[in-house]
Amino acid sequence: MTADGFKIAIVGATGAVGREMIAVLESRPFPISNCVPFASPRSRGKPISLRGKSYACHVLEPGCFRGVDFAFFDASDEVSREWVSEALSAGAWVVDNSGVHRMDPETELSVPEVNGQGLDRLVAAGAGARKLVAGPNCTTVQLVAALKPLSDRYGLKRVSVSTYQSVSGAGAAAMEELRAQLKSEATGGQVEAKVLKHPIAFNLIPQIGSFDAEGHTSEEKKVIEETRKILGLPRLPIACTAVRVPTLACHAESVSVELEKAFDLPDVRALLSNAPGVQLEDDPAQGRYPMNRDCAGRDPVYVGRLRRDPSLDHGLQFWVVSDNLRKGAALNAIQIAERIALLLR
Amino acid sequence: MTADGFKIAIVGATGAVGREMIAVLESRPFPISNCVPFASPRSRGKPISLRGKSYACHVLEPGCFRGVDFAFFDASDEVSREWVSEALSAGAWVVDNSGVHRMDPETELSVPEVNGQGLDRLVAAGAGARKLVAGPNCTTVQLVAALKPLSDRYGLKRVSVSTYQSVSGAGAAAMEELRAQLKSEATGGQVEAKVLKHPIAFNLIPQIGSFDAEGHTSEEKKVIEETRKILGLPRLPIACTAVRVPTLACHAESVSVELEKAFDLPDVRALLSNAPGVQLEDDPAQGRYPMNRDCAGRDPVYVGRLRRDPSLDHGLQFWVVSDNLRKGAALNAIQIAERIALLLR
Repeated sequence: MTADGFKIAIVGATGAVGREMIAVLESRPFPISNCVPFASPRSRGKPISLRGKSYACHVLEPGCFRGVDFAFFDASDEVSREWVSEALSAGAWVVDNSGVHRMDPETELSVPEVNGQGLDRLVAAGAGARKLVAGPNCTTVQLVAALKPLSDRYGLKRVSVSTYQSVSGAGAAAMEELRAQLKSEATGGQVEAKVLKHPIAFNLIPQIGSFDAEGHTSEEKKVIEETRKILGLPRLPIACTAVRVPTLACHAESVSVELEKAFDLPDVRALLSNAPGVQLEDDPAQGRYPMNRDCAGRDPVYVGRLRRDPSLDHGLQFWVVSDNLRKGAALNAIQIAERIALLLR
Repeated sequence: MTADGFKIAIVGATGAVGREMIAVLESRPFPISNCVPFASPRSRGKPISLRGKSYACHVLEPGCFRGVDFAFFDASDEVSREWVSEALSAGAWVVDNSGVHRMDPETELSVPEVNGQGLDRLVAAGAGARKLVAGPNCTTVQLVAALKPLSDRYGLKRVSVSTYQSVSGAGAAAMEELRAQLKSEATGGQVEAKVLKHPIAFNLIPQIGSFDAEGHTSEEKKVIEETRKILGLPRLPIACTAVRVPTLACHAESVSVELEKAFDLPDVRALLSNAPGVQLEDDPAQGRYPMNRDCAGRDPVYVGRLRRDPSLDHGLQFWVVSDNLRKGAALNAIQIAERIALLLR
């Protein structure tokens, strides 16, 4: 770190999350003295503009993290598996948005508003600690942000969630694919699926990731396991169905929660209104509830359609929408770095 | 009825469901001697082709159902409220797909594969019975088709469903609107919402129908109340979140069911495979599960993603897709008429 700020590295700088990282850094005061964007060989030398300066894309190679204070990994599991240890060896703090390290018992899995104390403990541990923090799956981030205040006040007995996930969760190429398929649909052309497993235009794909022997997808298991870890509730019963839908930005979730204790709805409303990172958008009479088109490009986790679940004693239903690239990945990673940076001072 | 078959009337013949009625009648052996299509005044005289004959659209007026054996109502609640009694007075059997009469305690609400015995009783009652049968909400039809065999064998303790409903559920104009909005999106134009409350291109609208004081929508309440009525389980706990998604055809549902008894998955699989009107499409390892693009224009209610709900003792999760205009409305109405016609012979 120099007097001006931190030297940061962004691995996957030209991808969907990497680009969102740049956009988020433009609008937040995280102190940066230098930036090294990493991308695949075909983007080598490509200029990335950040805060008025231009940085050329580099390719990952031994020694490439020298002098880096914070390395953000927004690439594939494979890249994280190969290069995170290199960044750690170079002495950098690593914020890894891949799925590789999330469930390591020793790795902090962090949504700062929800379990930021874990970051505090990590920094306090000093030189002995591994300077690695994992960012959760985007679908998990927005779910735990909404569940945390409910968990603290009422206790969670069971959580059931059905997701409506935009194609941006599968990267920039999937967004292009949806646009191209819709164009083909409009002109009577052939609809081709290359990035996603099936056509997504005017379609729903009830598979994100791969299946286990019991019929659950890896995405569904991530939501279940990561939510338990972040909330510190290793046995919390959770059910999840994850579905890809033909939206470009934001993930939405239909959530039903069984609480341990009786609750008043106005209480829950106040609780969520005051929860950090959460914005209540809930005035059905006025047609106000969270929607993808309104939430895209924004920071909060939006919650609406708050109501009693008529099928349960202490049941609560709600609808959560958040920008999966932003709070679900890029913003959350930067918030992790911000909290660590504050503690390092 | 003549020796050739029945005189039928289709109210709303130029609408999304009306057009599907014609398509379904083309492929089924329901005996028709004559057809009177009814539409709004601006479609008066418009020719409707059915089984090689052309029928001009009429406008509803007193006496217009004279001689009609079966009158299918596929128009608005307002039209049904005004004209169903006229059709009944003329002696016709009425199959009403509107929401007006569904919850009348005296009105049969029918999905023939599920509770067709009600139709049998109605016909057996003879001259004294009101010859009115209601077709359920499209979202209900596909849900009860999948629940019925589970209910019979294992008993239902609780049902929770999140829906993914195509714009065709809001009629042909909503389909046009989605296409127009996507075109605007592709060309950088203005996205306008006139038919639906909000833009639906690349968006999700968690409101179908209007809200009650508790925050549930009329669509959600229809699913809850109609499912209970059709399954004959007036106190069944059901939770529903109904969401409009940017697909053109078919509704999809993420369903979690808590059963009364323990179950084996292979048993459930066999049960659903043999259930009338249901087709199991469930081979996740091969990427096979029900999807809108595959199910559109087809008769069955498709069920897949069958698995244990890990958060419940006797919990089952699955994914249901069916063509909302076809089995959800047009086909179901014709199946009702077919069953009645068989019994009348």
